[in-house]
Amino acid sequence: MSELSEAERRDWLKLSRSENVGPVTFDQLIRRFGTAGKALSALPDLARRGGRTAGLKLATDTAVDKELADGAALGAQLIAACEPAFPQALAALDPPPPLIWVRGRVELLHRTCVAIVGARVASAAGQRFARGLAADLGQTGHVIVSGLARGIDAAAHEGAMPTGTVAVLGGGVDDVYPPEHANLYARIAETGCVVSESEPGRAAVARDFPRRNRIISGLSRAVVVVEAELRSGSLITARLAAEQGREVLAVPGSPLDPRAKGTNDLIRQGAALCEGAEDVVRALEGLRGFREPERGYGGGPAPEPDDALRAEVAALLSPTPVSRDEIVRATGAAPAAVFAALVELSLAGRCELQPGGMVAAI
Amino acid sequence: MSELSEAERRDWLKLSRSENVGPVTFDQLIRRFGTAGKALSALPDLARRGGRTAGLKLATDTAVDKELADGAALGAQLIAACEPAFPQALAALDPPPPLIWVRGRVELLHRTCVAIVGARVASAAGQRFARGLAADLGQTGHVIVSGLARGIDAAAHEGAMPTGTVAVLGGGVDDVYPPEHANLYARIAETGCVVSESEPGRAAVARDFPRRNRIISGLSRAVVVVEAELRSGSLITARLAAEQGREVLAVPGSPLDPRAKGTNDLIRQGAALCEGAEDVVRALEGLRGFREPERGYGGGPAPEPDDALRAEVAALLSPTPVSRDEIVRATGAAPAAVFAALVELSLAGRCELQPGGMVAAI
Repeated sequence: MSELSEAERRDWLKLSRSENVGPVTFDQLIRRFGTAGKALSALPDLARRGGRTAGLKLATDTAVDKELADGAALGAQLIAACEPAFPQALAALDPPPPLIWVRGRVELLHRTCVAIVGARVASAAGQRFARGLAADLGQTGHVIVSGLARGIDAAAHEGAMPTGTVAVLGGGVDDVYPPEHANLYARIAETGCVVSESEPGRAAVARDFPRRNRIISGLSRAVVVVEAELRSGSLITARLAAEQGREVLAVPGSPLDPRAKGTNDLIRQGAALCEGAEDVVRALEGLRGFREPERGYGGGPAPEPDDALRAEVAALLSPTPVSRDEIVRATGAAPAAVFAALVELSLAGRCELQPGGMVAAI
Repeated sequence: MSELSEAERRDWLKLSRSENVGPVTFDQLIRRFGTAGKALSALPDLARRGGRTAGLKLATDTAVDKELADGAALGAQLIAACEPAFPQALAALDPPPPLIWVRGRVELLHRTCVAIVGARVASAAGQRFARGLAADLGQTGHVIVSGLARGIDAAAHEGAMPTGTVAVLGGGVDDVYPPEHANLYARIAETGCVVSESEPGRAAVARDFPRRNRIISGLSRAVVVVEAELRSGSLITARLAAEQGREVLAVPGSPLDPRAKGTNDLIRQGAALCEGAEDVVRALEGLRGFREPERGYGGGPAPEPDDALRAEVAALLSPTPVSRDEIVRATGAAPAAVFAALVELSLAGRCELQPGGMVAAI
């Protein structure tokens, strides 16, 4: 963990904004090449080896300059996953987002964060509960993370406004959505903190929300779901949290209330029952620190995949996601060589490396 | 398991209605003496050995005749724990109630029973849920057991009226309480079944309700608690059910509703979450038959406690309940001799033998 130079941070940004470079590929490239600069030099060649015929579109210097200037104009800060200022909880993800933009009090991200999420169309009782829970957890020193959405999210932010709250956005750190939350946003940016993986100025589109949800749970020690229908976004956040090894709590509700179906189901599946701040505090008791990520951004030599291995890996992929470990087992080759082949294929746009260790053909 | 003769049933009734004879003492006496008649003959002597100076009051023949006549006038049936007509689930308790009075369709007690219990001051939503759950479980062939109380109990009986419901009373089988449930009672007695451990004509007093609750759970494979505040009677029924090895389910509710505090707490402690009949059916899947009670009402010789052992056992007792097994361990004597000493002390009014294996000095 060390701070990047300006030039290195530019390279990180450029690499992360280049075509077909998702967080998994980014992580693999840094492992293999040691620095973003070296990875950028190797990128066109890797994509070609993966089967790409057209040139891979790297982020332009103009675009990188613009993003840095836009962020600076907002007073926002760009933090890379390898830097000390990057939140420890988020750095423990495998892989972490390569970079985040942060507006407001960055230090809040280094305290114990608890996410409170739930239905956008929430009941008055649910909103009241979320507001009270956020306030109570704030009083006990916790920072409340949520997604600035209508309903439960907004109530949680409001409750934690006096003590500290973090809004994670799908668009840029200046993308206020829904528009009626302009005042809420302004107060959070002033007294709390706004976080986004996207470039400033970008308006959120549907596919940004799963990434946003992953950061909401990734920043947090525990995720509390207040009201949620079956098959709702909050349940996806809860699933991500469980996969990330975070505590999942759910607020029970009457079986006659459809907004309790999702939370009751979480409890049935093993989530802790949450009736108030005490339950969250109890769930957090005895938790240990996040393990230092093993990845060690130091780089090192990796076995090169040959054409035969690359072809074998490509043939093993299908649109149904499988784990990378399964691909390794099926080939019998060195994991590093298989991962390198997968990175090449992903840069060529032939497969998608998903967080959580899964890979699917495109 | 065999049917008692009229004379034997009279003896069972007389023994069970005699002073200081609770279900545990009754059970021990039958084990030791083989028949209620022999136990009755031995009773005065046993009480004397336990330290009783005044004569032990046996039930009078007049009282026994009156109870039998009162029951017959109601068309009710008296069933002893050793008889084939005694419900198997209730017979599996250790110890079972020695006798129950049953009015209505006794055969309902031999089907799979599910208890639905909860708050007397229940919400409209809670009552609606209880009614629907009872109706749905009735449709799948289950018999619904409850306590004829206001609120959840009444709603559960109503829901199961078309398919079969059992009311367990603290007073006699003709003791309608609360009075406004006269019509509900009449319909249950007509199409369902009423059960009580008390003599006909007796009005329930406070100490009858724990015994009643033990029969509600004892008749049932599963107990569902619909709404319950903390420290309420329904939670006692749930605890008894768990001790009896029955499934416990609880209906979740909003933390803002005080009537959900008890049910949410049950779920936290491991009760299955109940959102509908499917959850009950799932909880009952794979349950095996009740074990045949080991006690074998055949009688047999038991080691007699001597004065030294009796004094040692008496000295070990205190008002804080301890398990009978602990007393056995502390004395190092044969369990049957210790139990016999405890029976003598209980007949003398010096200790109380509680269901669940605990004993306390009085």
